[in-house]
Amino acid sequence: MLTLDFHPAGRHFLQIPGPSPVPDRILRAMSYPTIDHRGPEFGALGLQVLAGIKKIFKTVQPVVIYPASGTGAWEAALTNTLSPGDTVLMYETGHFATLWKKMAEALGLKPEFLGLPGTEGWRQGVQADRIEQRLRQDREHQIKAVCVVHNETSTGVTSDIAAVRRAIDAAGHPALLIVDTISGLASADYRHDEWGVDVTVSGSQKGLMLPPGISFNAVSQKAIAAGKNARLPKAFWDWTDIIEMNQAGYWPYTPNTNLLYGLSEALDMILGEGLEQVFLRHQRLASACRAAVRAWGLEIQCADPALYSPVLTGVMTPPGFDADAIRKTIYENFNMSLGTGLGKMKGGMFRIGHLGEANDLTLMATLAGCEMGLKLAGVPLAGSGVVAAMENLAAQKSKPVLKAA
Amino acid sequence: MLTLDFHPAGRHFLQIPGPSPVPDRILRAMSYPTIDHRGPEFGALGLQVLAGIKKIFKTVQPVVIYPASGTGAWEAALTNTLSPGDTVLMYETGHFATLWKKMAEALGLKPEFLGLPGTEGWRQGVQADRIEQRLRQDREHQIKAVCVVHNETSTGVTSDIAAVRRAIDAAGHPALLIVDTISGLASADYRHDEWGVDVTVSGSQKGLMLPPGISFNAVSQKAIAAGKNARLPKAFWDWTDIIEMNQAGYWPYTPNTNLLYGLSEALDMILGEGLEQVFLRHQRLASACRAAVRAWGLEIQCADPALYSPVLTGVMTPPGFDADAIRKTIYENFNMSLGTGLGKMKGGMFRIGHLGEANDLTLMATLAGCEMGLKLAGVPLAGSGVVAAMENLAAQKSKPVLKAA
Amino acid sequence: MLTLDFHPAGRHFLQIPGPSPVPDRILRAMSYPTIDHRGPEFGALGLQVLAGIKKIFKTVQPVVIYPASGTGAWEAALTNTLSPGDTVLMYETGHFATLWKKMAEALGLKPEFLGLPGTEGWRQGVQADRIEQRLRQDREHQIKAVCVVHNETSTGVTSDIAAVRRAIDAAGHPALLIVDTISGLASADYRHDEWGVDVTVSGSQKGLMLPPGISFNAVSQKAIAAGKNARLPKAFWDWTDIIEMNQAGYWPYTPNTNLLYGLSEALDMILGEGLEQVFLRHQRLASACRAAVRAWGLEIQCADPALYSPVLTGVMTPPGFDADAIRKTIYENFNMSLGTGLGKMKGGMFRIGHLGEANDLTLMATLAGCEMGLKLAGVPLAGSGVVAAMENLAAQKSKPVLKAA
Amino acid sequence: MLTLDFHPAGRHFLQIPGPSPVPDRILRAMSYPTIDHRGPEFGALGLQVLAGIKKIFKTVQPVVIYPASGTGAWEAALTNTLSPGDTVLMYETGHFATLWKKMAEALGLKPEFLGLPGTEGWRQGVQADRIEQRLRQDREHQIKAVCVVHNETSTGVTSDIAAVRRAIDAAGHPALLIVDTISGLASADYRHDEWGVDVTVSGSQKGLMLPPGISFNAVSQKAIAAGKNARLPKAFWDWTDIIEMNQAGYWPYTPNTNLLYGLSEALDMILGEGLEQVFLRHQRLASACRAAVRAWGLEIQCADPALYSPVLTGVMTPPGFDADAIRKTIYENFNMSLGTGLGKMKGGMFRIGHLGEANDLTLMATLAGCEMGLKLAGVPLAGSGVVAAMENLAAQKSKPVLKAA
Repeated sequence: MLTLDFHPAGRHFLQIPGPSPVPDRILRAMSYPTIDHRGPEFGALGLQVLAGIKKIFKTVQPVVIYPASGTGAWEAALTNTLSPGDTVLMYETGHFATLWKKMAEALGLKPEFLGLPGTEGWRQGVQADRIEQRLRQDREHQIKAVCVVHNETSTGVTSDIAAVRRAIDAAGHPALLIVDTISGLASADYRHDEWGVDVTVSGSQKGLMLPPGISFNAVSQKAIAAGKNARLPKAFWDWTDIIEMNQAGYWPYTPNTNLLYGLSEALDMILGEGLEQVFLRHQRLASACRAAVRAWGLEIQCADPALYSPVLTGVMTPPGFDADAIRKTIYENFNMSLGTGLGKMKGGMFRIGHLGEANDLTLMATLAGCEMGLKLAGVPLAGSGVVAAMENLAAQKSKPVLKAA
Repeated sequence: MLTLDFHPAGRHFLQIPGPSPVPDRILRAMSYPTIDHRGPEFGALGLQVLAGIKKIFKTVQPVVIYPASGTGAWEAALTNTLSPGDTVLMYETGHFATLWKKMAEALGLKPEFLGLPGTEGWRQGVQADRIEQRLRQDREHQIKAVCVVHNETSTGVTSDIAAVRRAIDAAGHPALLIVDTISGLASADYRHDEWGVDVTVSGSQKGLMLPPGISFNAVSQKAIAAGKNARLPKAFWDWTDIIEMNQAGYWPYTPNTNLLYGLSEALDMILGEGLEQVFLRHQRLASACRAAVRAWGLEIQCADPALYSPVLTGVMTPPGFDADAIRKTIYENFNMSLGTGLGKMKGGMFRIGHLGEANDLTLMATLAGCEMGLKLAGVPLAGSGVVAAMENLAAQKSKPVLKAA
Repeated sequence: MLTLDFHPAGRHFLQIPGPSPVPDRILRAMSYPTIDHRGPEFGALGLQVLAGIKKIFKTVQPVVIYPASGTGAWEAALTNTLSPGDTVLMYETGHFATLWKKMAEALGLKPEFLGLPGTEGWRQGVQADRIEQRLRQDREHQIKAVCVVHNETSTGVTSDIAAVRRAIDAAGHPALLIVDTISGLASADYRHDEWGVDVTVSGSQKGLMLPPGISFNAVSQKAIAAGKNARLPKAFWDWTDIIEMNQAGYWPYTPNTNLLYGLSEALDMILGEGLEQVFLRHQRLASACRAAVRAWGLEIQCADPALYSPVLTGVMTPPGFDADAIRKTIYENFNMSLGTGLGKMKGGMFRIGHLGEANDLTLMATLAGCEMGLKLAGVPLAGSGVVAAMENLAAQKSKPVLKAA
Repeated sequence: MLTLDFHPAGRHFLQIPGPSPVPDRILRAMSYPTIDHRGPEFGALGLQVLAGIKKIFKTVQPVVIYPASGTGAWEAALTNTLSPGDTVLMYETGHFATLWKKMAEALGLKPEFLGLPGTEGWRQGVQADRIEQRLRQDREHQIKAVCVVHNETSTGVTSDIAAVRRAIDAAGHPALLIVDTISGLASADYRHDEWGVDVTVSGSQKGLMLPPGISFNAVSQKAIAAGKNARLPKAFWDWTDIIEMNQAGYWPYTPNTNLLYGLSEALDMILGEGLEQVFLRHQRLASACRAAVRAWGLEIQCADPALYSPVLTGVMTPPGFDADAIRKTIYENFNMSLGTGLGKMKGGMFRIGHLGEANDLTLMATLAGCEMGLKLAGVPLAGSGVVAAMENLAAQKSKPVLKAA
């Protein structure tokens, strides 16, 4: 029997920017016995989660739920809407935007990758004016889709999707707007319909607080229409039959039943707290986390204060220190996992997740672990981030956090 | 909060041929907290399940685990090995073979569909001589793969895969052999290496006793080599990076962590009981189930006694009775789910699952539910299947079923 | 790590007359994190379960919940109401009545034990007229309490408690009426207030479907008044402070929090199904079980058809057969636990539990296991009990068992 | 369905000195299906937990496990060894010592209560010389037992039990030594045999990390011998039959099966970490906690540094502040439960639990919650306790805390 407890005692702090800690309420819900995916109970479950997830995406359009992890939903968004050789305009916000672009290439699309040189763009959000400029040049409308990442998990920058929509409209360009908010959904405000997004891609293991294993495509009518002419081969990802069968709460092939139990519970938790309250909580914690980073005298990866992520904070480590060695010190000494620097940032930063099932005290534990670990690793700190975070939280505090009766 | 208990009391009997009942040991294992999929604990978990699953497939070759349900693994087997327009020889054994063929078409392949007319082939297994004959005709080797279903879930027929291998060899044909044993694995004997299978497709929610959500491709070196020239677009399903990263126990993108916990537990259970013992248990239960069907005077869907499935038994209902109405009577009165007749068999048969976490008494409960339900639905029965099954089990009984100390 | 799975595969059938199988809904509820037993959440929980349990006892009087298993609640009933040397009239219905009498002796009481000679009384219920007769003789009212067992777990006889009440009243005797319905509660109809019971003793691991660990005293105002003069030493069992603190949902010392979670869920299940429906279900299953025993040609332990227990059925084994050897055969071959013959009945009978989370198919599995096991053990059977039970169930069937919407 | 989540999001911090947070490993173990308490699996479980618990008590003598919460084990220790009217020497270390004395009175014993006037003794441990002095006066050996609390949960003082043993021996007195280490066991070093304790009382919901519901009496041969003449009435608590049946792993009446599953897992966890390592971890956390209290400028309840508890720290609040109002502020704002001031200390102190499943980061979260809450409540603090605790932990840090392979 596998024993996964490498540390001698006490709770592990999983403070990576996803998978986020799964609340025990959700783990319990997931342990309900698997049922017949063609029986009446399942239909009731299906209808319930399909209705609930729309509220999270802020859409009245279909949300397709795949029994596959998030990377699959990236592929689904592309194969359902595009044809071999199509040009897509993508934007380099970081590691995940880069991976998505590689996927587009692998699938036979022609991605153009906008962005800033070197790691500069990895500290900024999507610059909508550059997209507008490029689209204006594309008089023949060869660009079929604009693909951007809402919350770039590798950097902690949350781009302005409404601005991208406005840019496309300003250019008078018919390209689809496809957005990845895998790590943003249910933590950062997101408005599929209001922002005019055609396909929104997301996953379960972040703000929804579920284990990995299901993923989403919220789609617009324009995306569905585009899909009728899309010639990339697809079968598993084809959303046509899924949307059709979802009307009765079923799926054309076997769904991931137990994760749907978890989704049902997650929706109860999020909508019970109130979606806007969830966003405020994430902002409060993120603000306190950044206060800590500043007090340590370290640099926040996101260079644009307007785009700070409520989900995670990227912390740049000083020259001469390997961020992964620091992470290892913290893991071994304080039983906490932090996110590594990815791609171009490897070794130069680490990422603190403060999403999902997070509150003031889990954040304080996290920051204390960072502060003790940074010191243990010999990183000179300007001051106590923990103290700064407590002051920041106190300044934000207005009323008790008990739920309304 | 969703309440899924439609029946007033007592355990639901989930006797469909998958998803099969998930043992509480596995549900508990799956409720272990989600961990960092890049951390050291995860690597240990990954290596363990990758080693264990090979024993189930009886292979020393790589087994790719996808964080997606079984239909996805069908697609993976095709996209990793084939190119647009490739001819593939498929064999109509039933509904799932038919769905797989439709998928091949959707992906841009050219499937040829061998089989018998009408529903005749739905009562038989793969006829290897017909495959040999067709391959001999294909002098230019335009057929790139032979795709067959091992255990056809829609009919209860288990085909002879070794015979298909011999047929291909006898024809001296280089086509790949791709086999779906989604519902056969870990219930019916299966030998990926010995039978010379190039890609074996399977899923979690049958003999492995897990919820749906992960699926498998066991691959041969020949399949890997073929993959280098395969031009169907692929990214999520591409097994190259997965096999590479699996060497250290990791995956290129987020795996379905909690289902891997479940897989670890399932492997402990199956290998603890003994894989061959598991097969014998399935055969014993299947034999008793068939004895019951015969005693009722009903016909077994599988017309070839050499190919009776150890996983499920298809029961043909007499003319004038709608099998689905009978199933509904049983569901409502006895809190038991049975499998529906699919595709060409709709309304004319139902399927009894006796796989995974099944033993003598769960089978007897199942058969009693069927017998009482058939009578309630007015189906004339020749005799008591329950009594026949008990006699069958008694005749097979040789020694107590306690585990060795 | 302890592995408790002695059998190779499939669900264990726990068909003893308690602990009864614990539904997974309850096991999940019990895995909610332990909370502060002095905090506001706990008070809400406490008030909820205290209100709900009264409905099960059919009382508006206090029900004291002890963080101790059922034997403790026997002691509590005695120590809260009686003084050293007090005479109590007890009635020998079987093994548990005998154990309770021994406890009374150990506590310094003077029990008089009414009953029939040998094992005769172990096949009958309490004969109320004998109680009346004895009370009439007790002109000086030295008898302080009449103690009877409602559902005798060792025999499968359910005595008529209302008749005992009438007997006491007819004798014009002031003795308290103390009743053990540890194995009857929530399976057999029970009416604490209507029947004028002074203290009702019960436990968690039978009809309430919980693990063992909490137990109950439902008390009358007369019992509380008697308690003020009771001089048996008591502290843990003293109900005075408990009743006082229960008004706000708390307990004077640490309660068994996680079992109270389970109780909350059990109350939801039972009251959701409907208490009277639960009783009818138990009667239906018990009737079918007895039909099986008769068809086998074996004798039912309870000799009075008016007093058949809806909870369990005692089955007498023919001379020359050791009931425990038969039970062992069944345990080893069919992964099912049955109740042993206790006390005077040791070796001469076994007990089939059909209580709590039980339905038609779990009963059929149970009876099939018995029938196959009896045959394997060489017991000659007159016919198929399984067939008789199916016919009995069919005859009782009137409408589907789905819950009302 | 009861919803116990009064706070909107994130983990509740249960930092009372018991019930302590139950690790999810233990909650999962407890959800294993209840088994037959007379079957072979149960015997194996019983033998395993009985052997393991002896290691925790550091005894080779019997340890009796009661299916009842800790208060019951107090009663068991007294009723198994003493007779009505016996004089027992008890020592006022705080609220729980006082409650135990009240229980002794309720049971008909004559407790003499040593201690210091007012609340003075509530800041000190047991003064063994005073016990010796009193025993020397008792020439006729009317004192039958000396009862002391090892770790006084209401104050955070851990008394020197070996010194009490030496005092009894020095006085040449035959009294039994009965010790309550309900909140000390498995957190503070305890040596039943080496210290010559006759009955040690403990419970499940503290260092053993289980929910409340089982409790313990470790007994000496002298205690067993004394029990033969003990005349307090007892039945449920009588350890004679229990010790006898425990030899085969069973109990005379229904044990609390699911809590025994939890105990089995807890023993695996504690003995896996190493009992001495567990003690060191508790000392490290307690030291850091006290550093925080000192930095705040608040007073530690325990006035004797040699007797600081590794389990909890009592924090005295400044005049003019109601400790319970502070606790309420912390509960409402930071989703954390702290222990209240009990008895004589009501309103004047609060208690921080740092026991069981506790590590550096759960402690830091706890201290941050206290610090923010104290400030929010207007308590003037001399400095940051959180910073002091981090420095304290850093000073203690020598090597990573990963388990040996």
